[in-house]
Amino acid sequence: MFSKILIANRGEIAVRIIRACRELGIRTVAVYSEADRDALHAELADEAICIGPAKAVDSYLNVKQILSAAILTKAEAIHPGFGFLSENSQFAEMCEECNITFIGPKSKTIDEMGNKIHARQLMMDADVPVIPGSHGSLSSVEEAMTLAEEIGFPVMLKAAAGGGGKGIRKVMSAEELPKHFDSAQQEAKAAFGNDEMYMEKIVYPARHIEVQILADNFGNVIHLGERDCSLQRNNQKVLEESPSVVITAKERAHLGEIGVRAAKAVNYQNAGTIEFLRDEEGNFYFMEMNTRIQVEHPVTEMVTGIDIVKKQIEVANGEPLGITQEEVTFSGHAIECRINAENPAFNFAPSPGKIKNLLLPAGGMGLRVDSAMYSGYAIPPFYDSMIAKVIVHGNSRFEALMKMQRALTEFVTDGVVTNVEFQMDLISHPNVIAGDYTTAFLQEDFLPNWKPEE
Amino acid sequence: MFSKILIANRGEIAVRIIRACRELGIRTVAVYSEADRDALHAELADEAICIGPAKAVDSYLNVKQILSAAILTKAEAIHPGFGFLSENSQFAEMCEECNITFIGPKSKTIDEMGNKIHARQLMMDADVPVIPGSHGSLSSVEEAMTLAEEIGFPVMLKAAAGGGGKGIRKVMSAEELPKHFDSAQQEAKAAFGNDEMYMEKIVYPARHIEVQILADNFGNVIHLGERDCSLQRNNQKVLEESPSVVITAKERAHLGEIGVRAAKAVNYQNAGTIEFLRDEEGNFYFMEMNTRIQVEHPVTEMVTGIDIVKKQIEVANGEPLGITQEEVTFSGHAIECRINAENPAFNFAPSPGKIKNLLLPAGGMGLRVDSAMYSGYAIPPFYDSMIAKVIVHGNSRFEALMKMQRALTEFVTDGVVTNVEFQMDLISHPNVIAGDYTTAFLQEDFLPNWKPEE
Repeated sequence: MFSKILIANRGEIAVRIIRACRELGIRTVAVYSEADRDALHAELADEAICIGPAKAVDSYLNVKQILSAAILTKAEAIHPGFGFLSENSQFAEMCEECNITFIGPKSKTIDEMGNKIHARQLMMDADVPVIPGSHGSLSSVEEAMTLAEEIGFPVMLKAAAGGGGKGIRKVMSAEELPKHFDSAQQEAKAAFGNDEMYMEKIVYPARHIEVQILADNFGNVIHLGERDCSLQRNNQKVLEESPSVVITAKERAHLGEIGVRAAKAVNYQNAGTIEFLRDEEGNFYFMEMNTRIQVEHPVTEMVTGIDIVKKQIEVANGEPLGITQEEVTFSGHAIECRINAENPAFNFAPSPGKIKNLLLPAGGMGLRVDSAMYSGYAIPPFYDSMIAKVIVHGNSRFEALMKMQRALTEFVTDGVVTNVEFQMDLISHPNVIAGDYTTAFLQEDFLPNWKPEE
Repeated sequence: MFSKILIANRGEIAVRIIRACRELGIRTVAVYSEADRDALHAELADEAICIGPAKAVDSYLNVKQILSAAILTKAEAIHPGFGFLSENSQFAEMCEECNITFIGPKSKTIDEMGNKIHARQLMMDADVPVIPGSHGSLSSVEEAMTLAEEIGFPVMLKAAAGGGGKGIRKVMSAEELPKHFDSAQQEAKAAFGNDEMYMEKIVYPARHIEVQILADNFGNVIHLGERDCSLQRNNQKVLEESPSVVITAKERAHLGEIGVRAAKAVNYQNAGTIEFLRDEEGNFYFMEMNTRIQVEHPVTEMVTGIDIVKKQIEVANGEPLGITQEEVTFSGHAIECRINAENPAFNFAPSPGKIKNLLLPAGGMGLRVDSAMYSGYAIPPFYDSMIAKVIVHGNSRFEALMKMQRALTEFVTDGVVTNVEFQMDLISHPNVIAGDYTTAFLQEDFLPNWKPEE
């Protein structure tokens, strides 16, 4: 087994990875920015190295500094977490060149799934249903127009190299198409150095259903069931659960099979997630593959009892999966609420600052709070606003909901405004209690009718 | 279901019960002493009532005040937790008379199991193996002498009404017997108003193995497997685990059967624990029954997925168990370490005081920290020194041990000395890692060789 791993991340996911390493008897190296000198991940790791100024581009995205830190500390592997460098194939490649194991798929796989046009083609070749749309890239506005009329407006124009919401346009009509095509193409060129565009039908409202995949280096691939992540605001997931209430056991097995087939088609290694949209007729469409650990992975861990981060490390170390699909069992129901330092009353504006008193609702049965906060911790303004994940597991979905309500009631972050009240109201909404929601629900039904308490 | 429950306790168990109530949609009433004005249980409950001065006898043992609080707040049931009034049959009876449900067995059962001579007899009648010793009470020193010579010295003299270490004497030889008999009898008379004595063979070293029982009001009784609580200091449990490494599946089923038979023999209702000693030949002997929830109940919850406190409330409310013995499954391994505010370097002297910074190792998979602490909390000097329970669950015992090590490493209580280092050293000891320990180990092998770090 690796004797030392560097964690190229911060916040709760860095802490979560450090904990997994500790439990495997692996020493850890944290990297931190100047703004994160007092961060918990730097405190908990066996070694910690400052890699630059606060801005992510100077620190957590600073490939050279991170690789230097790994070489300096003789780390044998790097865990990228999510965000930052986790889906950067060049970084993965540089790790490979430096003889440091990148804990994730091969750089080639990241590349293949990163180019959305390529990924669509690979999935179609593997008989995985994709969202109706273009085959390959669109060579001209004319081609786009012909296709859009075939699909029917509105359609979505997307950049092949897309990410972070860049190079994406919703096109409502034929009139709008030319100008959106040009501006999206220019934006993509500027952001990714690649102006390839493609088009997809808009599947909305839908359920966002994703399948967790685990694969080793010997061709063994299993799925760990699905997560329902339909509750989103601005395409950001807010609450996730597993299982999905709309999926039958038969559908789960079917979807899992598709997921495994998709992963095998790209010789996938390590943990990954295949995101699908499920339309109102129950059809599934491949959306994209996330070639990394995801924020919402704990809900799957809670229902399967499988530690996904430990599995990532083990398979990256060359161990076989050690578990067959038949051995994966699903028990109970898990829900995750993302707690952000943001003010829902002011359009969810980030609200960094110092936490005077912190009380995490840890304790009791089937409750997990993944966080990097402590009393007196100052949340820096430079990074993502997510400060904790509250994850509950109940024997039934109802028990899980009650448990979440209880947990959120106890949550205290004096000095910092969070979305805890918002989440409490969300999980108390009849539609959420009934499991009756789509990707449209939060933004179109819930938010317009939601009033902050003060 | 009850709409309101009063919790006649404090500390982590009060918080744990409040959480269970919340998750069941039941309102809670906390009672607190003047020393506990800032206690978490008083803060978290829906209502909180001060019941008297700091000393337990004036507050948490003050039956009249507690019953008044229940009547005043219209609480329909009282959960006594452990310690304090939990095994006080008069209190249970007074609850019954006030038409308040005592969440526990009937007062008659508490009485029957509280009188150790009576309990021994009931168990013998039910074919439950008891420790070789007297039948009924000893009428004279002469009778005691005859029996002791039959059993063989050393023997244990015990008061029928015993508890808290009072009225108990270890007798090494015939010479010692008369004086110990007299002094124990006098002590018992003074402490309990009952000077009945009995004698037992000393089973030492042994494994302390206990069986968790759940019973409803309809005669359904199940067991939730065993806990191994052999690691003790001064008869106080320090670390508990489930399953026990010395128990085979066959023995588990057998022991469970005995436990269920014992519970049925006394028409047991609610949760209870039957404690056994297992001698080095593998024989089990009934020691006593605890007619209440126990400190170490979470290890059983972690391996069975059954919330014992919720079950207590449900069956007290007249619901059937809702689970059969066949439906109880055991998964993985759980360990609990009791964290006490005490100084192991000074003979484990209690070390109350203010916690300047608190960091509980909550988070990550299979980890639970039950505590009533928060940053800035002042641990009062009046009560038990246990301030937290760290409970881990792993797929294997080794994983659970690694997880405990990781958790304890993260534990911070600036300003207050605890036994965390002691626990870390204990779980790192080869005997504990191997599961090779008896009730003698901690005190005779581990402690004499243990050196605090400073």
